Amino acid sequence: MENVRNLIASANQNFMDAFKRADAAGLAALYTDDTRLLPPGFPMMSGREAVQSFWQSAMDTGIKAARLETVEVESEGNLASEIGRFVLTVQPHGGESTEMTGKYLVVWKKQDGAWKLHIDIWNTDAA
Amino acid sequence: MENVRNLIASANQNFMDAFKRADAAGLAALYTDDTRLLPPGFPMMSGREAVQSFWQSAMDTGIKAARLETVEVESEGNLASEIGRFVLTVQPHGGESTEMTGKYLVVWKKQDGAWKLHIDIWNTDAA
Repeated sequence: MENVRNLIASANQNFMDAFKRADAAGLAALYTDDTRLLPPGFPMMSGREAVQSFWQSAMDTGIKAARLETVEVESEGNLASEIGRFVLTVQPHGGESTEMTGKYLVVWKKQDGAWKLHIDIWNTDAA
Repeated sequence: MENVRNLIASANQNFMDAFKRADAAGLAALYTDDTRLLPPGFPMMSGREAVQSFWQSAMDTGIKAARLETVEVESEGNLASEIGRFVLTVQPHGGESTEMTGKYLVVWKKQDGAWKLHIDIWNTDAA
């Protein structure tokens, strides 16, 4: 249990690092092949390519960084759930930098020995 | 696997029935004791009482029905993830009835022999 939480923390660090480098391919590589992304304001998306396009667009429209903080992890075998909070730093072209906060639920799956984001959904605290 | 999906479908039917009866206590009983609810536009909530208050408020403000449709279930031991789509029927006092569509992710947990909603998060498809 402790172990899974640590491995997820380490994967989340990779996520934040890839975001800072604006590396959408690096982000997508952290997801399973058959991942599902459920972003607010968009229909459900499937597969790693869709994930890469989504994050690329998000970066293009000014999301500069994602800060993730795990609240709770539970796991059984190759499946784990992680609840967390996020802060996105948003700075549209030349504009002022603002922060958007919310919460997320990720179902992680162990694939080929590595824990990957398998289902990723989030929403914001403010309407 | 098939079995868990059927049990979740049956629990979802109970959810929809409780919603139609405007029975917030009945809805809350479908969640685990230590459940977490992550509704869009609100901070994270913990525990069955908070869940009951949340759904009571939602009903009071005009949410009349919830239609749930499972897209995918995966399970390991006592933990299962369910992706689904929802349609909420919203009719504020005396107003016109409209529908709100979106997607959800529920982490189900087997507690005392029954599958219960343990983590519940959703968002809408339109911004």
